[in-house]
Amino acid sequence: MFRIKIFSIGKTKESWLIDALSEYEKRLRPIMPIEWIFAKNNEQLEQLVEKEPSFIALTPTGKEMTSEVLSHNLYQWLEKCGSRLSFVIGGAEGLPPFFANNAYQCLSLSKLTFTHQIARLILLEQIYRATEIHKGSEYHK
Amino acid sequence: MFRIKIFSIGKTKESWLIDALSEYEKRLRPIMPIEWIFAKNNEQLEQLVEKEPSFIALTPTGKEMTSEVLSHNLYQWLEKCGSRLSFVIGGAEGLPPFFANNAYQCLSLSKLTFTHQIARLILLEQIYRATEIHKGSEYHK
Repeated sequence: MFRIKIFSIGKTKESWLIDALSEYEKRLRPIMPIEWIFAKNNEQLEQLVEKEPSFIALTPTGKEMTSEVLSHNLYQWLEKCGSRLSFVIGGAEGLPPFFANNAYQCLSLSKLTFTHQIARLILLEQIYRATEIHKGSEYHK
Repeated sequence: MFRIKIFSIGKTKESWLIDALSEYEKRLRPIMPIEWIFAKNNEQLEQLVEKEPSFIALTPTGKEMTSEVLSHNLYQWLEKCGSRLSFVIGGAEGLPPFFANNAYQCLSLSKLTFTHQIARLILLEQIYRATEIHKGSEYHK
C-alpha cells in the first residue's frame, strides 16, 4: 500500500475546502491514503519535515510538468522512496529556503500564484488524477 | 465599472464549488462583477460565444503567465475591450478548435490538467488576485 503525507501550515477552516478535499481523500483511500500534517508556523513545519526520509516541496521555482509526467514521476518516486512520499505546501508567505535546499524534488503547480488553500485542492486532485492516469481510466482524457 | 463574463459548460452542481465561487464573487462584486453563462454542450457554447466582441479562451496550448503579468494584461485587455471581457472554459473534453482560432487571447492556467470545476475556481481567484495586485494590497505577496 502506498502512503502519502501532505505537510502544510494552518488547519483547513473553510467548509468548502473541507468538503472538496474529503471527496478526493475518499476516492484515494483504497489505493493511496492521504495523511495531512499541519504545522503552526514555518519553524514547526521545518522540525516536522526534517524527520521525513525525503520530501517533495511545492515552490514557485520548482519544476512544472504535465499531469501525465507527474503521474509517471509520482510512481517512480514512490518506488524509490519505499512506497512512502511526503509533500510540503507553504503558508501564505511560501516556503523558506530550507525546504527547496533539502527537498528530494521541487515541484511548481503553475506560473500563477495560488492561495495555499487552493494549492491543497490542486495537489490532492493531481494525486488522484495520477492514480487514474496510472490505471488508464477515463478520468483523465 | 468593469464587467466580466465567464462562459462554461454544465452548471456548477458541487456544493463546495458553489460556496467557494460565491466567496470570490462577493469580493469582486463592487469592482468587477462576474456573470456566469452556462452552455449545455460545445455547439451551444460556440453559438453563445460568437456573439461576444472578443473573448479569452482557456486552452492547454495557451500562454502561461505569472499572476502579476495576468493582472497587468487583464487591465490592458479591459481597456482595449471597452471594460467588458469574456473568458471561456471548456468542459471535460476541452474546447474545440473554433475557440483557439477565434479567441482574442489563449490562456493556460498550468501545464497540469485540471477538472473544469477546479479551473472555474482558479480563474475566479486569479481575477480577484489581479484586482488586488492592481491596487497594491497585501493579498498577493
